[in-house]
Amino acid sequence: MNLLIDNIGELVTNTGIGEGGPLGIRRKAALLVEEGEVAWIGPARYAPAADRRIDADGRAVLPGFVDSHAHLVFAGDRGAEFAARMAGEPYTGGGIRTTVAATRAADDDRLRDTVGRLRAEAMRQGSTTIEIKSGYGLSVADEARSLRIATEFTPETTFLGAHVVPPEYADRPDDYVGLVCGPMLRAALPYAKWIDVFCERGAFDADHARAILTVGQAAGLGVRVHANQLGPGPGVQLGVELGAASVDHCTHLSDLDVDALAMSETVATLLPGAEFSTRSPYPDARRLLDAGVTVALATDCNPGSSYTSSMPFCVALAVREMGMTPAEAVWAATAGGARALRRLDAGVLRPGVPADLSILDAPSFLHLAYRPGVPLISQVLHNGVPQCQP
Amino acid sequence: MNLLIDNIGELVTNTGIGEGGPLGIRRKAALLVEEGEVAWIGPARYAPAADRRIDADGRAVLPGFVDSHAHLVFAGDRGAEFAARMAGEPYTGGGIRTTVAATRAADDDRLRDTVGRLRAEAMRQGSTTIEIKSGYGLSVADEARSLRIATEFTPETTFLGAHVVPPEYADRPDDYVGLVCGPMLRAALPYAKWIDVFCERGAFDADHARAILTVGQAAGLGVRVHANQLGPGPGVQLGVELGAASVDHCTHLSDLDVDALAMSETVATLLPGAEFSTRSPYPDARRLLDAGVTVALATDCNPGSSYTSSMPFCVALAVREMGMTPAEAVWAATAGGARALRRLDAGVLRPGVPADLSILDAPSFLHLAYRPGVPLISQVLHNGVPQCQP
Ligand SMILES: [Zn+2]
Ligand SMILES: [Zn+2]
Repeated sequence: MNLLIDNIGELVTNTGIGEGGPLGIRRKAALLVEEGEVAWIGPARYAPAADRRIDADGRAVLPGFVDSHAHLVFAGDRGAEFAARMAGEPYTGGGIRTTVAATRAADDDRLRDTVGRLRAEAMRQGSTTIEIKSGYGLSVADEARSLRIATEFTPETTFLGAHVVPPEYADRPDDYVGLVCGPMLRAALPYAKWIDVFCERGAFDADHARAILTVGQAAGLGVRVHANQLGPGPGVQLGVELGAASVDHCTHLSDLDVDALAMSETVATLLPGAEFSTRSPYPDARRLLDAGVTVALATDCNPGSSYTSSMPFCVALAVREMGMTPAEAVWAATAGGARALRRLDAGVLRPGVPADLSILDAPSFLHLAYRPGVPLISQVLHNGVPQCQP
Repeated sequence: MNLLIDNIGELVTNTGIGEGGPLGIRRKAALLVEEGEVAWIGPARYAPAADRRIDADGRAVLPGFVDSHAHLVFAGDRGAEFAARMAGEPYTGGGIRTTVAATRAADDDRLRDTVGRLRAEAMRQGSTTIEIKSGYGLSVADEARSLRIATEFTPETTFLGAHVVPPEYADRPDDYVGLVCGPMLRAALPYAKWIDVFCERGAFDADHARAILTVGQAAGLGVRVHANQLGPGPGVQLGVELGAASVDHCTHLSDLDVDALAMSETVATLLPGAEFSTRSPYPDARRLLDAGVTVALATDCNPGSSYTSSMPFCVALAVREMGMTPAEAVWAATAGGARALRRLDAGVLRPGVPADLSILDAPSFLHLAYRPGVPLISQVLHNGVPQCQP
């Protein structure tokens, strides 16, 4: 059975072919889905017959969002901490330990319910690809089960045993790094595609981060780094040196950091939801783009510093706060995220890739920034299958 | 037929009775709807039997949002102007004329379709009460039909013939004010509850605004003013002097403006969507609240400067950018909006008022700020009737 999406007013392909530069926009287009993949794209007037037809009625269609940075495996709620912070208490990152305690105490089904609920919520907002990190278990067993549960929802799973040093290792961080590099990594390996470290003052320094990422890389995992979020630091340069697919946050960058990124294949993934929810200064996307750095946008969805699953919200923030054009922001939220996950088959619409896409309740991708906060995702196809709407 | 909403984890009543000060929060509550009104509120364990039951399953319920400032009667799209502005072109308000031309050229059905689409979109996001202004017709016939169409969707209709001076009167603004005060007001009266003036440099000065508002008030309309948005000005003090229900925007206020508001019954309605979408400094809600001013939040939904219909987005912005606590922001978006419309039966949940409410997909109202951009409104009741979900 095949499916035709007809009368697309504006089709963003991200192929670079058509209008709008990298967005590769085609107008009055149609898109045929067969066996879960894009089978054909062309002018609506040449659209083939199909078993089933969705009339886009002049609306915009774009590749599904690729949310390349999300922490969905956790238990508990930190709404009260959020409210206190908004009343003036500064964000220090210490609150992660609250979530670690709740996550360890939760049974598998409770964790699975939370991941499933947030995954579905993200899908309804157009995120057809999502990365999910561990990092609230911080014991061998709890990191392994966090990743095992994550694999039920995405192939893009990331071992973040080095999120913070857990309380029981507070006085002996070297021992914790040894645990992460040894037994915890071995337990995580069957379930992880990526390894990540929170390289920041108060979390892991450059030596620890290098040790962990190097051993993970040797074991076959791809590298990503939480870097330069709260202040300047060595994370970005370390990531570039190790050939990381992405360094994430990039709020406090030196010129050398920007130069290193520009000369590398490493993507700078910006997470404006975190700055929004911690009332912190935003990263300067314009500086990165002007230097030639590849930029991705992601949600950082987590219960402490950025409890949003909304890629449209991140697009709107990127335009308002980070100097991106709507076109750059939409590219970064789709193709950029795909590059941050080194996925050639996501964030793009061309024959042969999975039919992962959103139909907007709007005539143009511009509306994602022009109409902030409005739920504009009217239908989502994942692997060619229309997803249930809320 | 009656309807029970059971197992409400957190019920915001805005009665001041219960926890949370003005929010009047009740926990483990139930709410009975009969003949479209709230018939009973009490502990879930004492809930009466009912013909139909919605299990809120521990989630939060709050009064429907009252969006007291929206410009929904228009035609055309200004996405390209938005994108240009985001690329650095400053916002001057001149773009309104683009919308006026498109609105005049549109037939009634096209205008009705737009209002209906946006009204439904706002309802899905929890806005059970909405004010709708004219102001893109700017001729006797086009203002009257704008208001006539608005009355099909809300009782809270506002005559804003004095939005800008239309091009054909550019050289003789006094004549336009005469038209507004005479034939245009007469044509608008059957369809309008309120009168409003955009009192700002480049629009209408204090003398013109006073003339228009005074004649409207004498004809039986309530007064509201667009005031002090783009710079300091006389609008706020004029509004207070005339006993306006609300002065809207309030971005640039002197101490005298704040004092005048604090000693009045006039609400200060803040519209952070406009500052978001024009990249302008936000109003200082904290200053107003600390001075004892009653603050409301609204969307300013319009195609030029704030094309959002999302009250949850405005709540999140108010907390991030304007120094409001989540509780203050939620109160301002519900009870505050009701005061701005002098409605005693909206923005509150107690026996005898219309059953206008939202069930959140969250355990607390806090999540509206804690989870920015996420569509958290899972069900809306308007006059006791569950609204269709998207
Ligand atoms: Zn993160
Ligand atoms: Zn307005």
